[in-house]
Amino acid sequence: METEISSLGEFGLINRLTENLPKLNDSTLTAVGDDAAVMSYGNNREVLVSTDMLLEGVHFDLTYVPLKHLGYKAAVVNFSDIYAMNGTPRQLVVGLGISKRFTVEHLEALYAGLRLACEVYGVDLVGGDTTSSRSGLVIAATVIGDAEKGTVVHRSGAKPTDLICVSGDLGAAYMGLQVLEREKAASAGEKDFTPDFAGKEYLVERQLKPEARKDIIAALREAGILPTSMIDVSDGLSSELIHLCKASNTGCRVYEDRIPIDYQTAVMAEELNMNLVTAAMNGGEDYELLFTVPLTAHEAVSKLKGVRVIGHMSPTEQGYALIGRNGEEIPLKAQGFTHI
Amino acid sequence: METEISSLGEFGLINRLTENLPKLNDSTLTAVGDDAAVMSYGNNREVLVSTDMLLEGVHFDLTYVPLKHLGYKAAVVNFSDIYAMNGTPRQLVVGLGISKRFTVEHLEALYAGLRLACEVYGVDLVGGDTTSSRSGLVIAATVIGDAEKGTVVHRSGAKPTDLICVSGDLGAAYMGLQVLEREKAASAGEKDFTPDFAGKEYLVERQLKPEARKDIIAALREAGILPTSMIDVSDGLSSELIHLCKASNTGCRVYEDRIPIDYQTAVMAEELNMNLVTAAMNGGEDYELLFTVPLTAHEAVSKLKGVRVIGHMSPTEQGYALIGRNGEEIPLKAQGFTHI
Repeated sequence: METEISSLGEFGLINRLTENLPKLNDSTLTAVGDDAAVMSYGNNREVLVSTDMLLEGVHFDLTYVPLKHLGYKAAVVNFSDIYAMNGTPRQLVVGLGISKRFTVEHLEALYAGLRLACEVYGVDLVGGDTTSSRSGLVIAATVIGDAEKGTVVHRSGAKPTDLICVSGDLGAAYMGLQVLEREKAASAGEKDFTPDFAGKEYLVERQLKPEARKDIIAALREAGILPTSMIDVSDGLSSELIHLCKASNTGCRVYEDRIPIDYQTAVMAEELNMNLVTAAMNGGEDYELLFTVPLTAHEAVSKLKGVRVIGHMSPTEQGYALIGRNGEEIPLKAQGFTHI
Repeated sequence: METEISSLGEFGLINRLTENLPKLNDSTLTAVGDDAAVMSYGNNREVLVSTDMLLEGVHFDLTYVPLKHLGYKAAVVNFSDIYAMNGTPRQLVVGLGISKRFTVEHLEALYAGLRLACEVYGVDLVGGDTTSSRSGLVIAATVIGDAEKGTVVHRSGAKPTDLICVSGDLGAAYMGLQVLEREKAASAGEKDFTPDFAGKEYLVERQLKPEARKDIIAALREAGILPTSMIDVSDGLSSELIHLCKASNTGCRVYEDRIPIDYQTAVMAEELNMNLVTAAMNGGEDYELLFTVPLTAHEAVSKLKGVRVIGHMSPTEQGYALIGRNGEEIPLKAQGFTHI
């Protein structure tokens, strides 16, 4: 009667654990199934909450991740979840599990990153819990945000004709991880090793110091565009597209030649003899925003800097498809639990 | 230039990491330095947030802690932080780090405990993050609560003449841990070992299935008593008393013969040849409420079932004192980081 977690996958597991949860409080609006839960504590604001856990040896390797960057990233990946609901992050609480090898200076470096991220994104660090850990460093961050009433964007609002848009470019953070792993392997046993990131600076930065797309949320607002559904790209475009489709009860068609990919990502894929599109579709950790808008918003969204229309939603029965450069249809597959 | 964390202690470390944090949002009212941060998202409600992290091998031992109990406890210790601010817990988000040895059934047992606690305390489980862990089980829970405007109780409001009150009894959860550790040692290498908890049931229950004092908050409200300061007893009475005194800028005098101790706790202390008062003052994990009320509330608070007046605040220069049975003055010492 023992069921292995891998037989369900991350999302199957979450569905199983959270099915039929009751709603006991009026202040709870929507719960599991979005980037953040939505609550109501006032007349004109809705309150958002989201949590993320980062574990040493799973999500980061301190051999090449500076603690300040790690703190920055731990905060930013949480902020990204609030932006993905069209909200503004306001407060952050951080739980830390630390093992004996860490000194006060290490933690100050980590906090310097947390503080910097909070400053850059206008968020208050309001609390936390610090405890010892028997194994590695554990960072659990929870962010509280808000949004004007009626402006929260869920995963579930897309219509079958909506346009699918994505910000920035994809696959670079994943390639940055490959660069870092390669240099780590090259440095093994060598003293005074200097890693070579020449021509890969953008990739390494995307991995070590991701940013949340506050600017895109602001640009959408300024352009008067309210997305019909939205999610941040943390597990890879394929997986996030399927989340939007499942929640919205639609299919999707995205076009390979529309997927935004940086030049450095393409060069690195070639060096590693990797399929570039696979890396961009499944790489993860991009923290870009994936969203849908009505067809009528086509002109407005096309004018936005840093946003590209990559396809459109479709009726459910058409499934989830990537259309290749020669018009061939490639079914999308969910990933998730990339860290197991 | 490396400073060991132990040289600062838990609270010194937190102070150092969180000093001079800016306040960037109007919705942030008070941050670090209480059981929960306080925010304002509406006209008549204040919003509270608190987080706690539990790590395998540090906070719990799965040899004798059933997963359902662990889930229950992980939720309840968070709820306790909200009650300690005179608030009501409303929503819970849970981050889980799980290693490969866990099956779906294990996680269902853990969630059954989380769900039960949420049901008992009227809280909605609204989200989370599930990831893999290289080492043991990690549980990071964050709770959101609320309170009517103007009713939040901080650590900092006590006056030097206020009465010090505590709910329930102290030291039992710590003694429960001793019972469990003793039976674990006795079982080493033995097959089909049946632990002997006879006469220790209360202690074991206090350790494995603590409750948050929702009932005391309700009783105080019904009696029209608004505490001047409050904290929950998670690290031991001594440590929490000092927190209240430091935040309120007072001293304190508590009386040994007023410390509430259960009969089973006393018997176990004798069996282990341990100092009973030390166990009650420093044991931790009681999750009782420690609070102060004005002298004028003496009669009202004395009538409350399950609450005892154990002493009074005093001017700062009188320090933090436990008055022994023979009138001797014993200085209180902060503990904290009991898990390191």
